[in-house]
Amino acid sequence: MSSSFGHLFRISTFGESHGGGVGVVIDGCPPGISVNESVIQQELDRRRPGQSEIVTPRKEADTAEILSGLHDGLTLGTPIAIVVKNTDQRPNAYDEMTVKYRPSHADYTYDAKYGFRAPTGGGRASARETIGRVAAAAVAKQVLDALHPGIEVLAWVKSIHDLNASVDPETVTFETIEGNIVRTGDPAMVEPMIERIKQVRGEGNSIGGVIECVIRNCPPGLGEPVFDKLEAELAKAMLSLPATKGFEIGSGFAGTLLTGSQHNDPFRMIDGKIRTTSNRSGGIQGGISNGENIVFRVAFKPTATIMSSQETVTSSGENTELSGRGRHDACVLPRAVPMVEAMATLVLCDHFLRQRAQCGGILRP
Amino acid sequence: MSSSFGHLFRISTFGESHGGGVGVVIDGCPPGISVNESVIQQELDRRRPGQSEIVTPRKEADTAEILSGLHDGLTLGTPIAIVVKNTDQRPNAYDEMTVKYRPSHADYTYDAKYGFRAPTGGGRASARETIGRVAAAAVAKQVLDALHPGIEVLAWVKSIHDLNASVDPETVTFETIEGNIVRTGDPAMVEPMIERIKQVRGEGNSIGGVIECVIRNCPPGLGEPVFDKLEAELAKAMLSLPATKGFEIGSGFAGTLLTGSQHNDPFRMIDGKIRTTSNRSGGIQGGISNGENIVFRVAFKPTATIMSSQETVTSSGENTELSGRGRHDACVLPRAVPMVEAMATLVLCDHFLRQRAQCGGILRP
Amino acid sequence: MSSSFGHLFRISTFGESHGGGVGVVIDGCPPGISVNESVIQQELDRRRPGQSEIVTPRKEADTAEILSGLHDGLTLGTPIAIVVKNTDQRPNAYDEMTVKYRPSHADYTYDAKYGFRAPTGGGRASARETIGRVAAAAVAKQVLDALHPGIEVLAWVKSIHDLNASVDPETVTFETIEGNIVRTGDPAMVEPMIERIKQVRGEGNSIGGVIECVIRNCPPGLGEPVFDKLEAELAKAMLSLPATKGFEIGSGFAGTLLTGSQHNDPFRMIDGKIRTTSNRSGGIQGGISNGENIVFRVAFKPTATIMSSQETVTSSGENTELSGRGRHDACVLPRAVPMVEAMATLVLCDHFLRQRAQCGGILRP
Amino acid sequence: MSSSFGHLFRISTFGESHGGGVGVVIDGCPPGISVNESVIQQELDRRRPGQSEIVTPRKEADTAEILSGLHDGLTLGTPIAIVVKNTDQRPNAYDEMTVKYRPSHADYTYDAKYGFRAPTGGGRASARETIGRVAAAAVAKQVLDALHPGIEVLAWVKSIHDLNASVDPETVTFETIEGNIVRTGDPAMVEPMIERIKQVRGEGNSIGGVIECVIRNCPPGLGEPVFDKLEAELAKAMLSLPATKGFEIGSGFAGTLLTGSQHNDPFRMIDGKIRTTSNRSGGIQGGISNGENIVFRVAFKPTATIMSSQETVTSSGENTELSGRGRHDACVLPRAVPMVEAMATLVLCDHFLRQRAQCGGILRP
Repeated sequence: MSSSFGHLFRISTFGESHGGGVGVVIDGCPPGISVNESVIQQELDRRRPGQSEIVTPRKEADTAEILSGLHDGLTLGTPIAIVVKNTDQRPNAYDEMTVKYRPSHADYTYDAKYGFRAPTGGGRASARETIGRVAAAAVAKQVLDALHPGIEVLAWVKSIHDLNASVDPETVTFETIEGNIVRTGDPAMVEPMIERIKQVRGEGNSIGGVIECVIRNCPPGLGEPVFDKLEAELAKAMLSLPATKGFEIGSGFAGTLLTGSQHNDPFRMIDGKIRTTSNRSGGIQGGISNGENIVFRVAFKPTATIMSSQETVTSSGENTELSGRGRHDACVLPRAVPMVEAMATLVLCDHFLRQRAQCGGILRP
Repeated sequence: MSSSFGHLFRISTFGESHGGGVGVVIDGCPPGISVNESVIQQELDRRRPGQSEIVTPRKEADTAEILSGLHDGLTLGTPIAIVVKNTDQRPNAYDEMTVKYRPSHADYTYDAKYGFRAPTGGGRASARETIGRVAAAAVAKQVLDALHPGIEVLAWVKSIHDLNASVDPETVTFETIEGNIVRTGDPAMVEPMIERIKQVRGEGNSIGGVIECVIRNCPPGLGEPVFDKLEAELAKAMLSLPATKGFEIGSGFAGTLLTGSQHNDPFRMIDGKIRTTSNRSGGIQGGISNGENIVFRVAFKPTATIMSSQETVTSSGENTELSGRGRHDACVLPRAVPMVEAMATLVLCDHFLRQRAQCGGILRP
Repeated sequence: MSSSFGHLFRISTFGESHGGGVGVVIDGCPPGISVNESVIQQELDRRRPGQSEIVTPRKEADTAEILSGLHDGLTLGTPIAIVVKNTDQRPNAYDEMTVKYRPSHADYTYDAKYGFRAPTGGGRASARETIGRVAAAAVAKQVLDALHPGIEVLAWVKSIHDLNASVDPETVTFETIEGNIVRTGDPAMVEPMIERIKQVRGEGNSIGGVIECVIRNCPPGLGEPVFDKLEAELAKAMLSLPATKGFEIGSGFAGTLLTGSQHNDPFRMIDGKIRTTSNRSGGIQGGISNGENIVFRVAFKPTATIMSSQETVTSSGENTELSGRGRHDACVLPRAVPMVEAMATLVLCDHFLRQRAQCGGILRP
Repeated sequence: MSSSFGHLFRISTFGESHGGGVGVVIDGCPPGISVNESVIQQELDRRRPGQSEIVTPRKEADTAEILSGLHDGLTLGTPIAIVVKNTDQRPNAYDEMTVKYRPSHADYTYDAKYGFRAPTGGGRASARETIGRVAAAAVAKQVLDALHPGIEVLAWVKSIHDLNASVDPETVTFETIEGNIVRTGDPAMVEPMIERIKQVRGEGNSIGGVIECVIRNCPPGLGEPVFDKLEAELAKAMLSLPATKGFEIGSGFAGTLLTGSQHNDPFRMIDGKIRTTSNRSGGIQGGISNGENIVFRVAFKPTATIMSSQETVTSSGENTELSGRGRHDACVLPRAVPMVEAMATLVLCDHFLRQRAQCGGILRP
């Protein structure tokens, strides 16, 4: 079950970095929704390697093929299977790694769990696995657009290493973010961030950072009490992405420095609607969206693959050293932006259907 | 499904703050496990109101009654139902709140979701719901102790407001933590934290903080690739607790300030075992435990109920003001410590059974 | 997970025949539905022992207590927990059975599965477990009545031993069925069936039979392709009832004697609706309801507990003999009628919500 | 969720009769299992059209391609994706059916459910969907062979129309069954059954029948109490196959004609094992396997597609007539035999893993 996500809009991804291909099956998609395949490809293109000078130069076209579930561009209500064939494989690039565990990768833990692993590339732990998520979310986005137009999911690079972007979640636009190869929302930080990534890559090193995401025009009522709180689902969704180390919503960790009187969001009637005049809740109260912007942040660690020599062990239990090889991102954040949006979109679409099931739909649109 | 958690060790909680009672049904518990009911009661006692001078003075005995699933102290393998009756109800304490939405509570969002809610107390959003979780986790703990002895789950108050405890996750003991009513692991911070809580309560205000948790002696191999990564499951578990705003594991958000060469955990053979010489991964790599201590932190916002007057609206859409009433915690953290441990224990027990199902058990004990 | 049923209207039952009690937690119930507790009790009364001269004389009041999920008679959308306390326990009646396996009971298989079992009564395998199902279905029935009025689920005894009732599923009424203690739909067979049950009971023996069930006014569109076909869900639901040995829908096994031209149901426009002029499909085509009456039959074996001496073995592996004791039904069918209706109602309610989730509701009401 | 089956060995099938292809993703497969791809292909060949003179002459090679989850012939523990491309499509063969509902097919109900359907071929309701099930079961079979050698799942044609085969479930062999194109276990009935199928096909008509299945050497302890009883899971599995109308286990419907003293299976110690000296239970008691042969039967209706003119309606609601076209099976049973085996194997594999999860494995092998 570990490769499935969602309760009603349910996706199952498959595929390793080196094998026939990767992909996804979507079960439970509403019928009669117009799905534009080019939207799927656009999102895959935002995710794919080789898209700019600051990401891994691997050449992967990542062309999506839809095998089922659509007829004349409309969803049938049956499973939608999407496959992306693997092409640019260089298994020999990984020879050394068949015996040496790469530090802070999943090589050792896969062996410990399964007693066995595919020794070429990251296997199932490769970021290539996220192709299925991004493709499925491109469908989910079109489902939401059809059933409840107006919801906008927008993520950007908030920080890279110690470089912080100044971005207003209320007003930042897709054009601003997508207009630069870092995918930050602060034009002033584009060049410094690019420089930093290039510098670190030149040193054979890597860096991480924080991605921030806003969901605008989310109707009140999404999310469920207790275990499937909307923020809990988002937290799981984000921590399931490779290289993530933290999640916070609204005031987050910094909110622990406030008192209740500073932190609470007062309610006021504004334009005939119940609104809050601040948003330290981050758009969710009691696990359920309140109609304000949902704002959260996700921490990504520095890429584990670096070019310098590191201490490690072999699978047979001998101390040794290993230097990274292959073509990797020195900083995953520019490519992780569409992944964060994808996971958020999948959570929303699933909970939209859940709300429709239990309560008949959105009660306060 | 929102009130169920876990895939194989599956719990379903029920109950509102004001009604017949709260409780839990555990499905999938291994048979033949000796379950000591007093362990369940002990954990409920750590969670319950009125346990010390710094928590809410509500009088709730929270006595657990086990209705099924045990025979002569042994689990039957059938569902274990545990009920705690509600006793100290003062519905009239909430009269005003039947029409006025309490800021940063779930009153408004429940209405928005369901079109309707129980107007007395927090209903399902009450922290009283966590009784079922804590009781179930006390069973899970005994299951783990029987099937894989030695795993230790230990949480403590890491910070309250701006007061930070200095605690070493490797060495801190249950006795130290449980030896003070704040449940912090730093004896030097006990008095300052107690003072701060009393002061804030005296002002009719509230504060939050951070709880840190360590899982020691977790065998390698728990957790699954992709969506059910161990850290993703922990993140969801923690963010499903009331008042939480953030989760981070290992290096967390601070890890984004390191480079890959600073952040990676080198592998070394130590005492014949594969170990890492640092633990910025926080005990999990690629979603799977690596045998090191699992260390994470959870942010709790200041309690939403405060005694000062706040702006809010009525359910019929009029601006108004509201002052908190009733008996509440000015700081939830001392009582949240066993809740954090409970959720972590539930995740571990579930993944232990999942590992047994797919791989036949722990391969590297 | 074995004690949970349903995907969206999800129930978890608990409880053994001898212990604190039995019950159910319903998760996912739509909010704002008026639930009459007396309807729950009525259904439990139709199921309970001691209701007539032809069922077991055990005295069990089976009084339902609702612990959560309702406020002022309306569902809150949160879990509804219902408990029935155990009262009439005579554990000593089962002393011999703690070491001797009762033939065609679950004693041996529980031991084989779990390595251990509660040696008093049927434990979890007792028909007493169905209390939770019947109580939950009484809620489901009220949910369906509110959201899609007119659906009628009606079961009756079709045969007992070799006595066959002649019943027209189109026209038989609840009053006819409930008007006799056998719960058959054929007045002419009431006395013969009562006589047969009394005769067999007098001989210390037991008998089985067939229950037939019709679902009238089921809208087209319920059920899902492939694995969750409506008939597949009904089959599982029925075979999960104690003592069941078979399920057939529409033409069933007899339909294998027809050719396609005899079996196919022609479509015709009738009163502006698409109808079939015969109903060998039993109201379901391709796993999805077609608007015709859903008609199915369930085979119940003779009760396993009989008073004559039978060959068996002890749990320590010695051949021995055993005579049944305790108070049992010589024929379970009169009490199984509400159980069959309950399981059918649960399947319908779950699929109604599933249809609402994926397709927005019933498209052709 | 309707296209997923199994709780721990979980499969998700996808694909329509006319589109890119059909297939399956298996999640939760144990790691390190040797999987022979030719076994998968063999099973697909037993299922495919054109295999003999009595099945549909459609030419579909049904060649399986494994995209993921295997490395050097061993399962990785990650999802196994198997795809079979569609090749022999003749969409124009179905022109008339885009507006006329085929009687006793799923055309109308798909429209009623989804408001829309692919008008070419059976779409998702096509028996072609079962390719994914058969492929997945061929993997499941190899998993079971590796983890618990000796379990044998064997199905055969028990009856076609009114022709009944005489087959002993204890002794019939795969060679006998697979040695004739009808796949019956009674050599004397091979020619009569072939003749009957040819005759009916010659008349443009169709017939159905009953498939019987035995599971030999199933260890005691598989299956779970209450809802996931082994017979309930088998019933659902079988009724999810196209064209099925009934399921019975052990004594089945005929068992209702026996008394308890005739029906009960006495226990005896035989060769040091607890055995029953009759098997009217069909190998399952209380939902759990008892170590005896599991024997069940499945009713298949006559194929819905016939060549004679039938009354039907158009999707716009006009009475009309329709004659079947295209290439179809006059009797699905020979090809359904591997489907029945496949579904039984999937249920067993799933419950084997469930037993391992909860109880640590088979306790009495």
